[in-house]
Amino acid sequence: MRFELLASDAASSARLGRVSTAHGEFETPAFMPVGTHGAVKTLSPSDLRAAGAQIVLSNTYHLSLRPGTDVVKAIGGLHRFMGWPGPLLTDSGGYQVFSLAPMRKVTDDGVEFRSHIDGALSFLGPEEAVRIQRDLGADVAMVLDECVPYPADRDIACQAVDRSIQWAARCRSVHSARAAHSASAGHSGHEGSQALFGIVQGSVYEDLRERCARELVAIGFDGYAIGGLSVGEPIERMLEVAAFTAARLPADRPRYLMGVGTPADIVRAVALGVDMFDCVMPTRNGRNGQAFTSDGLLRLRGARYRDDARPIEDGCPCEACAGSERVKNSEGSSNAKRPLAFSRAYLRHCVNVNEILGLRLISLHNVTFYCRLMARMRDAIRQGSFGAFADEFLARYGAGRSGGFG
Amino acid sequence: MRFELLASDAASSARLGRVSTAHGEFETPAFMPVGTHGAVKTLSPSDLRAAGAQIVLSNTYHLSLRPGTDVVKAIGGLHRFMGWPGPLLTDSGGYQVFSLAPMRKVTDDGVEFRSHIDGALSFLGPEEAVRIQRDLGADVAMVLDECVPYPADRDIACQAVDRSIQWAARCRSVHSARAAHSASAGHSGHEGSQALFGIVQGSVYEDLRERCARELVAIGFDGYAIGGLSVGEPIERMLEVAAFTAARLPADRPRYLMGVGTPADIVRAVALGVDMFDCVMPTRNGRNGQAFTSDGLLRLRGARYRDDARPIEDGCPCEACAGSERVKNSEGSSNAKRPLAFSRAYLRHCVNVNEILGLRLISLHNVTFYCRLMARMRDAIRQGSFGAFADEFLARYGAGRSGGFG
Repeated sequence: MRFELLASDAASSARLGRVSTAHGEFETPAFMPVGTHGAVKTLSPSDLRAAGAQIVLSNTYHLSLRPGTDVVKAIGGLHRFMGWPGPLLTDSGGYQVFSLAPMRKVTDDGVEFRSHIDGALSFLGPEEAVRIQRDLGADVAMVLDECVPYPADRDIACQAVDRSIQWAARCRSVHSARAAHSASAGHSGHEGSQALFGIVQGSVYEDLRERCARELVAIGFDGYAIGGLSVGEPIERMLEVAAFTAARLPADRPRYLMGVGTPADIVRAVALGVDMFDCVMPTRNGRNGQAFTSDGLLRLRGARYRDDARPIEDGCPCEACAGSERVKNSEGSSNAKRPLAFSRAYLRHCVNVNEILGLRLISLHNVTFYCRLMARMRDAIRQGSFGAFADEFLARYGAGRSGGFG
Repeated sequence: MRFELLASDAASSARLGRVSTAHGEFETPAFMPVGTHGAVKTLSPSDLRAAGAQIVLSNTYHLSLRPGTDVVKAIGGLHRFMGWPGPLLTDSGGYQVFSLAPMRKVTDDGVEFRSHIDGALSFLGPEEAVRIQRDLGADVAMVLDECVPYPADRDIACQAVDRSIQWAARCRSVHSARAAHSASAGHSGHEGSQALFGIVQGSVYEDLRERCARELVAIGFDGYAIGGLSVGEPIERMLEVAAFTAARLPADRPRYLMGVGTPADIVRAVALGVDMFDCVMPTRNGRNGQAFTSDGLLRLRGARYRDDARPIEDGCPCEACAGSERVKNSEGSSNAKRPLAFSRAYLRHCVNVNEILGLRLISLHNVTFYCRLMARMRDAIRQGSFGAFADEFLARYGAGRSGGFG
């Protein structure tokens, strides 16, 4: 993996970059749609391409339980399994173990837990997290970390930081050994080219965040994530901790703020120097009939949209708002008329009668909205106008409550 | 609406035709995917295009209840509402009233019934059925008929035939009057160009079928449907009655066998001279994880597909089997790699974890399979090889139990 820093904003910490992986490039700031079970809910890889997604995230915990890592490996790895040919990031599975598993026992070795599906006993340690992500074949793998809920006592958070640093070192060690092994065995380099990111924990305690960041940087990773945020703390506190932590991470590595967030949160975090984001909001809200627009969230279940003939958002190029350009069938014969755009009234109707197409079209719009927002921020950084863009976006989106992004 | 007969098979009653409507042409034999609530479940209009669908069916009963005909009309009609720019057929709503409504009272005037959604009392007579389908703006409207279950006593079936003929005459009369009115008012002709099909009832009683066909032809319709079949009678009996009825319908009008059926049923019915079909099987089976192939139905939930890396069917051009050709995003920028095909293992996984994408990909494959089957039959009729095609298809599909189609 290679990270190039292409431009920096003069008035904020926002920056433009490019990450090269064995499966292609992605530009930063980047938004990663979340494919929990190896599918971004309702959307196909070609939808994701059309939406402008350049990198996709998938969850190790869920894939390990179903269909099982062995199945994904047998099919040729996660790219082939999910049909996504571009850059792919997997998490370590730790967050889901801590948030979903009905029983878990944490020791210095790792976490013993029961599956939330069938109660089967499993064990996830740093070595297992690396091995599973190798088998999945992600372009970016994440270290195993210990997540604490919010609020957390300082000594609980401190213990989790200690353990997260130890686990990160073990992940780094086994990951490097395997990379060296596959390089010396003459493998094609795809396995060896997998990047590994460290994850800074420390809850809202700045000294813990600082120590964790310093220790991880000393170990040395291809990129650094800010974890343990967006778990219930107030937004302003989240942004303060993200700002503090981002400032302590090396400038020549991508920074990833895990699980964030709303469009407004993302714009403000980009101003803090964050490069990568993931969030289920575009698809989860989509399935609830909520559409993101530059003017905020449209709740399409509402009676006011009953006979609203307008698309979700004028000027949006997604299939929901602009119809499809496809007039040919799969065997190449052409029909004259192209499929039409969809009204808010139609999407509301689909949501109300549980027609999957409606949930899918709103999800597609939302992922397109997020990806276009990232593209607009990249353009603004490139052109030296990020501050103006962010102010205008936040004011219009209705989230500029703190008077800007700084 | 205009129907051109382009070729006829020498050894069977199969025929090739073309129907021209205000929203474009469709070729016959044609398969119509079913968009019950104004959406073909999980699929977008551009998916339907890619699958090779040329005409789509939607259900008047469901649309009348939700969102209401007034909403569809306010948005600009059903084509615009559902985003489908091509030919569109609506049923009269009668079949659903007879099969879904929890209470119904049939008189010579029409049917009083309660909604299966909220119990609201409604009335559907021939005049209402025509008016609603006018408001929806379908290219092909269907008369209101009385459907009887199978088995039905002869006198029950006879009474339903009498009533269906009377209702058909009233539909014809009000439909023609409105067409004449809009023509004399100088309207653009779209409303006036809506076709109206009669529906032959009569259960499995040949004399009733014969009388119903004769009376409907005397009234005069743009096309003729064979209704009241595929309601529980044995397949061989269905095909006998369809053959008997089709032979009594005029050669210069399209013939539509309602609600049929499996790929094998359709091939055998095409041999009997049927031109149009609709069925929920491709999408319903798709949502249950069942995929149609030339070798029969694949039940993808099965453990045997756990690590099966093959696509559903080699050579199928659908997005599930062949990946997508789309490498550009919606704003035109191109990524190098095209999205990949999907393995049976992946589709099985999606079905097992309820990932909508899996249901959608299998539905897309199934509709593509049906539409390609129609295209292959049209080619075979054109080339004078329909008999050989049908024998070979039925033998391979495993449904050639009666020794062929004749």
